[in-house]
This record gives sequence, structure tokens and C-alpha cells, in this order.
Amino acid sequence: MTRVKAVKGLSWGQAAIGNAKWSGARLCDVLKDMGIERDTTDALHVQFEGLDTDPANMPYGSSIPIEKALDPYGDVYLAYEMNGETIPRDHGYPIRVIVPGVVGARNVKWLGKIIISKKESDAHWQQNDYKGFAPNVDWDTVDFKKSPAIQELPVISAICEPLEGGTVKVKNGKVKLRGYAWSGGGRKIIRVDVSADGGKTWQAADPLESDESRHPRAWGWSLWSAEVPVSKKSGEVQLCVKAVDSQYNTQPENFENIWNLRGVLANAYHRVNIKIEQ
Amino acid sequence: MTRVKAVKGLSWGQAAIGNAKWSGARLCDVLKDMGIERDTTDALHVQFEGLDTDPANMPYGSSIPIEKALDPYGDVYLAYEMNGETIPRDHGYPIRVIVPGVVGARNVKWLGKIIISKKESDAHWQQNDYKGFAPNVDWDTVDFKKSPAIQELPVISAICEPLEGGTVKVKNGKVKLRGYAWSGGGRKIIRVDVSADGGKTWQAADPLESDESRHPRAWGWSLWSAEVPVSKKSGEVQLCVKAVDSQYNTQPENFENIWNLRGVLANAYHRVNIKIEQ
Repeated sequence: MTRVKAVKGLSWGQAAIGNAKWSGARLCDVLKDMGIERDTTDALHVQFEGLDTDPANMPYGSSIPIEKALDPYGDVYLAYEMNGETIPRDHGYPIRVIVPGVVGARNVKWLGKIIISKKESDAHWQQNDYKGFAPNVDWDTVDFKKSPAIQELPVISAICEPLEGGTVKVKNGKVKLRGYAWSGGGRKIIRVDVSADGGKTWQAADPLESDESRHPRAWGWSLWSAEVPVSKKSGEVQLCVKAVDSQYNTQPENFENIWNLRGVLANAYHRVNIKIEQ
Repeated sequence: MTRVKAVKGLSWGQAAIGNAKWSGARLCDVLKDMGIERDTTDALHVQFEGLDTDPANMPYGSSIPIEKALDPYGDVYLAYEMNGETIPRDHGYPIRVIVPGVVGARNVKWLGKIIISKKESDAHWQQNDYKGFAPNVDWDTVDFKKSPAIQELPVISAICEPLEGGTVKVKNGKVKLRGYAWSGGGRKIIRVDVSADGGKTWQAADPLESDESRHPRAWGWSLWSAEVPVSKKSGEVQLCVKAVDSQYNTQPENFENIWNLRGVLANAYHRVNIKIEQ
């Protein structure tokens, strides 16, 4: 997205991913025990405050909609174990919130306080940070109140092998690709399409691997690989990937039309330029 | 999509839309009364059979996942009233299924039978029709078992005014656009972006109107309008629209990369070419 126009954001790229096993108390059970039920509550949000503070002594904070918090199949956990052991300090010891299908920013670590409210968290990261805007909105005109806080993220995919700028040997007229895909809201990845000619022709990646979970509780990453024919004998080609989730949503082709001032929601096709050799 | 390459499908375009008020029995209550509960059932699907039959005397059929059928907030109804009156025959009298957020094909009219099963409906429309495939799959190579039946539809939008090929008067350097947007799975339309230069520049449509419903129970259509500047004094311009839903999914730019043999899931930007006059 930064190649389209500069953004004020962190420089994320494709990177290592993993699925962890989280254990703890279900937030819906804790709230039910406090008498908060979906049909009777007038609360709209559940706010979380971390024990970590910024230089002005303000705690990290976020919130999620009450519908997600109270859904017994939404799998929101007040987690105190990760992969069967006490959560390491870097991952949120002693208690962190796990909100599967939702952007990491709402998964508050070192949890100190839970607030049931009609209002979203007042924290900077909820109110004035992780939100999307139309491409014409800049820092002079932005009104953060005009956009909802990002909760569920859109469908995304990435090529992990080969790497950008690499030289790849062709075997039987094909190149081998591997990568990952994911979608927010518990949507399952149902297909990943790959191209070795910049998006002119496509084929479905095979195999496409994920755990047994079904829509709308497919919280984990999917891994895919593919062998894709290249028409050239040598020279440069562009590899592309796009994923399709169980809502049959797919990714936009390019970053131009989804550019936004914070550089978030950057889910256009991942493109990798390589040189091929026979 | 047919401009990219022919499809075997019906010739849908943008058209009149409306929200109706449906009343009846909640399917989750009916199933609960029969002892079917999400935590204990081993069923995976709820099949519906209509009383209407094809020339071979086979009834229309479809199915939905058990998760949707049993979700008390999924709002699946065995409806017998439409807008406060007995459902008209054309709309499914005496009973039809309403599955909000899900493709019309699963909303079976003239309901005759409900089957709780580990399997999806065997009907043609579930098994061999409304499914998506990668663009390289044609009728010689298609394997309908390789793709899941369409349930929730992806985000979409359309321009209703002005119409394709029309001549539009510019007022104060702007043209006025109106249209609709919608997303499957109860996702709410949070923004609609419009362009009057073929997608080079964008602005958010304002107003964007929908009912009070919240994600993930925003089942209805949203209506939008916008006044968009045109740089030309006269000549041809291309209007474009794309919507963003509460999962921050958006639409693909073009039909090329989402082409599929049945022509379904055709949610690329709606583009309308007009002539402008001062």
C-alpha cells in the first residue's frame, strides 16, 4: 500500500504465522454468571483494559461488541493457558483476552479490567487508530468518528515461497508456490487461486489444508501449496495469490482503490516477482 | 461477467430491491421442540423440500448448515406472513423458509418437508448449480464436489441512477448518483465508495441509509446517494461503486479474475458509462 502513497502505520509484510491452543474461562460464561444475557442486557460493548500503560500512564484498552462477547460459539476466552502451559509473559500472563476472528488489537494482554458498557472503549486504539476510510480521506480531513473500529478482518492470503526477487528453477514447466490464507469472523478458507502470469490465468491451489473447524468457527490459518505452469522458458514472472472464504468474499486486485491513511486492511493480492530458469 | 467470457446462467443485472417484514415460527424453536440442540445433535444440515416439482417430478430442494438453523440470532423463519398479511402464492404460500443473509436459492417456497441430516440436500440446486470455481475451470473439467454450495453471499453494490448510456446534466461541477448495497451473513454495509472517473478517485457516499440493525444481524438492503465531482466539462465518464461491509470486506475491481462458469458471485464494481453535459 505504501507504494501507492505513504501511510502512517507500521511496516507489516507477510510473516511467520501459527495457530496456538488457548485455554481459560469463556467470557460468555463469566458474563452469564454476572447476570448479563443477550436478550436482556442494554449494554452494547465489552471493554478490556490492560495492565500495561503508555508514557502518560494510560492503560492499553479496546472493546468488542456485546454480540461477540455473549455468543457461546464466538469462543471469546479469558485465557490463562497457551498450548497447555501457563501463558508466557510476552503473550499476556497472567490473563489475556482471546477474540478469535477479530483483529489482534482487541485481544488485550495482561488483562486488568472488564467494563460492560453502552459505549466502546475510549482508548486511542479503539477510537482513533484501527479504522478504514475511503482513499480520498487524508490526515487534514479525517474524522475518526465516521468509521467503525475494525473488528473482523477481511479475507487475505500470502505467498511465502518463493520470495520476492528470487530465482526459481522450473520443473516440468511448473513453479512451486506455498503460503497461507485466513479470513475474519470465523469464515473458512474454501479456495485459494494462484497465478504465475501476473493474474492472466489462475488455478486453485491444491492441497489446501486447515483444521476440521466449520464456518462460522474456522478461526485458524490455512496453508496451501500449488504447482503452477509458466509459459516462459526464462525471464521474469509475477506470482499472485487470492483467497476465497466461506462467504465467497475474495480480495481486491490492487492497493490503489483500498488505500487508506493508516495503511490498514491491506488485503489486495499478494504479488511476488521472480526470475525463472530451466 | 459475460463480457469476459460466456457463462451458462441467468442474465441478472442490477434491479429493483426491497425489504419485506416476515413473520412465522423460528426454525430454531421448532427444532428445539423436537429435541434438536446445537451441543448434542450430530446433524450437520437442515434440508428443505418445496411442493413445486420439475418435469421429472422432483421437488425443489436445498439445505443450510445446522449452525445457521439453530442460531437463535440467525433469524431463520418458517414464515407464513409477509408484511403483516398471509404470504401471497408467488412468494411461497402457505409456508416458506426465510434464511436471512443467505442466497435466495436456500429460501425454499411452498415448503413441504424438513429433513435433519448429516448430509446436504441431494437436489440439483444444492449439489450441481450454485457454486463458485476458479476462472480456469470449464464445463469439461468442472467437479461440483470440489466447491461448497453458496450460502452467504459476498458484499455487493449497484448504481441505479443514472442508467448506462444516459446523458447527465452537471450541476455545480457534480453528478448525482443513487443505488443500493448489501452483504451476506448479516454483515452491515459501513461505507460505499463512488467514483466519477472510472475508479481513479473516490469518495464515500453520503447519506448511506439502512435500518437500525447491527452486525451480525444486518439482513436488509442499504440505500446510498452521492454527489461526485466530474473533471470534464462534457464527454464520457465512467461511474463506479464499491461497498465495504462490517467485516471490512470489499469488492474486486473487475470480473476477469472472478469469472466462473455459472456466472455466479458476480460482485465486481458496478460501472456505468454516461455522457455529461453542462
